[in-house]
Amino acid sequence: MKISGSSKFIAEIIGTMVLVLMGCGSAVIAGADGTTGVGLLGISFAFGLSVVAMAYAIGHISGCHINPAISIAMVIAGRMKASEAASYIAAQIIGALLGAGLLYLIASGKAEYAGGLGQNGYGDFSPQKYNLTSGFVAEVIFTFIFLLVILGSTSSKNINGGFAGLSIGLSLVLIHIVGIPITGVSVNPARSIGPAVFVGGGALEQVWLFIAAPVAGAILAALVWNTLIEKREKS
Amino acid sequence: MKISGSSKFIAEIIGTMVLVLMGCGSAVIAGADGTTGVGLLGISFAFGLSVVAMAYAIGHISGCHINPAISIAMVIAGRMKASEAASYIAAQIIGALLGAGLLYLIASGKAEYAGGLGQNGYGDFSPQKYNLTSGFVAEVIFTFIFLLVILGSTSSKNINGGFAGLSIGLSLVLIHIVGIPITGVSVNPARSIGPAVFVGGGALEQVWLFIAAPVAGAILAALVWNTLIEKREKS
Amino acid sequence: MKISGSSKFIAEIIGTMVLVLMGCGSAVIAGADGTTGVGLLGISFAFGLSVVAMAYAIGHISGCHINPAISIAMVIAGRMKASEAASYIAAQIIGALLGAGLLYLIASGKAEYAGGLGQNGYGDFSPQKYNLTSGFVAEVIFTFIFLLVILGSTSSKNINGGFAGLSIGLSLVLIHIVGIPITGVSVNPARSIGPAVFVGGGALEQVWLFIAAPVAGAILAALVWNTLIEKREKS
Amino acid sequence: MKISGSSKFIAEIIGTMVLVLMGCGSAVIAGADGTTGVGLLGISFAFGLSVVAMAYAIGHISGCHINPAISIAMVIAGRMKASEAASYIAAQIIGALLGAGLLYLIASGKAEYAGGLGQNGYGDFSPQKYNLTSGFVAEVIFTFIFLLVILGSTSSKNINGGFAGLSIGLSLVLIHIVGIPITGVSVNPARSIGPAVFVGGGALEQVWLFIAAPVAGAILAALVWNTLIEKREKS
Repeated sequence: MKISGSSKFIAEIIGTMVLVLMGCGSAVIAGADGTTGVGLLGISFAFGLSVVAMAYAIGHISGCHINPAISIAMVIAGRMKASEAASYIAAQIIGALLGAGLLYLIASGKAEYAGGLGQNGYGDFSPQKYNLTSGFVAEVIFTFIFLLVILGSTSSKNINGGFAGLSIGLSLVLIHIVGIPITGVSVNPARSIGPAVFVGGGALEQVWLFIAAPVAGAILAALVWNTLIEKREKS
Repeated sequence: MKISGSSKFIAEIIGTMVLVLMGCGSAVIAGADGTTGVGLLGISFAFGLSVVAMAYAIGHISGCHINPAISIAMVIAGRMKASEAASYIAAQIIGALLGAGLLYLIASGKAEYAGGLGQNGYGDFSPQKYNLTSGFVAEVIFTFIFLLVILGSTSSKNINGGFAGLSIGLSLVLIHIVGIPITGVSVNPARSIGPAVFVGGGALEQVWLFIAAPVAGAILAALVWNTLIEKREKS
Repeated sequence: MKISGSSKFIAEIIGTMVLVLMGCGSAVIAGADGTTGVGLLGISFAFGLSVVAMAYAIGHISGCHINPAISIAMVIAGRMKASEAASYIAAQIIGALLGAGLLYLIASGKAEYAGGLGQNGYGDFSPQKYNLTSGFVAEVIFTFIFLLVILGSTSSKNINGGFAGLSIGLSLVLIHIVGIPITGVSVNPARSIGPAVFVGGGALEQVWLFIAAPVAGAILAALVWNTLIEKREKS
Repeated sequence: MKISGSSKFIAEIIGTMVLVLMGCGSAVIAGADGTTGVGLLGISFAFGLSVVAMAYAIGHISGCHINPAISIAMVIAGRMKASEAASYIAAQIIGALLGAGLLYLIASGKAEYAGGLGQNGYGDFSPQKYNLTSGFVAEVIFTFIFLLVILGSTSSKNINGGFAGLSIGLSLVLIHIVGIPITGVSVNPARSIGPAVFVGGGALEQVWLFIAAPVAGAILAALVWNTLIEKREKS
């Protein structure tokens, strides 16, 4: 079937809204303490299962990128036109802002709401005070790994394509299990921009890293995939 | 194969019974403390895995709605007749009452049983005292997201339909990871009615919200899906 | 392909050995405390993932029953001959004894080994002192639910049969999330017999319940499935 | 499609790098305490989900062994040539060293980095002081189980081959849920060699066990599979 551009645009808005609202919401509402809250493992599942849920909901509409780094990698890998990626990225940022706004609306309905919307950070704003170098290296490598999973599991040469939504979502669970103490984990510029705009301050000053590092990791993955692992597919 | 109406009716009773007994049972029996019990993450998995289990057990019989909000959305989306939905909803409420009753029977076999059947609530009855507005908004949005996953992953245009049971169940895990502190999470009027009838008091007085908000979210999802994301499918 | 009876017999021994060694082992070795050990949620995943792992490893050999209650239900449901079920049950008990023995061998290599092999119990031997009635009712209902998932997801009328290993295993995760505080969860006579023979005492005196209740629940499920949900399939 | 040897070599390097960086990284960065960190359950998921992610990313390239014990078992089972296995094993060790090195680079960016890279050990270096016999027996049995899942779920006689990545990865989650207190769980010589080379000392002195026991368990599984469960497949 032919999917219209507006359907894709709306699907990307909603998908990114869900990722930010639910992923960041798990930290803000349910909490990182494993005894009284859902713990780091619960937050990890929230981000990853948001992708699983959206992949099977809107994957057949827009491909469920819901992440500018993915759309850019798809252009580099020759699987998407740059003009369409630009439109996807706009939708993703709109969706992330909507998700962060809705999260604020819900979270502030608790008298003791402490502020914060699951924003990313390094150095003094890192959850466990990892420095800028660790944060940058981690975001590049984590996004590189994430994109390899995406490029491989959605490859036309992979006969198990139906599992892509699961493997991609579960790889995001994995990345969060490891990386939350470092930066809170971004690997997705839109996911960082949404909360940063509402929270401002250090989150907004540091948001450049969560744009630059994921994009760098994604481009690296696309190049490695096409030159070293699979020959470039015809676009 | 042709499935008889009575098979569907019984499947919906049993499925909803399992959801309430096991979902609410995880909170009542195994506990929300992550050190001594299964924690919020364990309760989240209990609700979601109840749906995974039932989806593959009775999905080919009744479609495994086990939730009045889903049956109503299916009518709005043009995928089900209103008369059949009415019969489904009756079965779901019967099943939820059975589940809550069985849970009471089992839970009261412990000398220190503290009462409670996993009922939902807002304000003074919210697990972490979220106000009515937060509770209402959260239930509308969570049900909206839940229904988008259902409508998308079971769409006849989605070639990965076999994964629907997993993606729908895991999306319910996700919603509980985020939302238990707000209302205990309903997104399902039957799941709220069952415990409320046995517990009475505030749970019964507040049950209107857990009927109204999920139904509103479900209708909204069906309208958005059919008008903005996929063209309406012929019923 | 034609699978020989001896292959099936060995597969059932190994599968049940893995279930008991790994399921009970998670409790004995890794611990029920969620802060220092894997917690009740981790134990729940251990039992369920043992089934997932074995289902895809030996499902095409023996069907991966690894549980006498399942083999009995398959006879009642008309899907298996009684003579073959008897051979399966013998293999399952041998496997359970092997699993419990291996667990003792490994666990006793720790100086502070406290004893215990994950045995089931009720009353004074219930983890949280649930009485006999609760234990019996819970084991009947949990096995009933477990068998409905098995009968439904492996039905020849279910087009998503490939997911059966996942849905059955995840339903066992679910049952453990809810039920560990009551009896430690059996739903499987072999799983209870293995540890009881090595531990003796109260575990052995109470093992009758973990034979009788799962068998009763399994027979009930087979009858409900064949008479109320699906017409009886030709064997 | 024909995959070149260099593509397979690079895929095995990257896959093993991811397993070591993310599996060991979950312990080093996110922590084994279930209240403040991801806990033993989180670490278990990190190792297993690394396999799930890589299986669907590079399974169609190299088969995603990322473990010398698997490559050796595949030779014994008649599914792989010894010469190719040698090349795979070289790639796996290179990848494991890369993963451990990257983990050190990231982890040392925290001022309070305590050292350690998730190395395996027994006796005084066992997480809970299990002795050498327990450690050896556990590693042999765990690898035996792991390889049965691999041999069965990737068998050409298994019609549900698409699920192999999930069942194999989830079986590694299972093995870690049970075994972390004993040795930290290896079942993979490369995974042990990587951290041991960087950490040195006791980790390097004990690494022989984490080569010998997994290889023994893998060979045993291949022999049992081919002689007792499935007839040997033509290579």
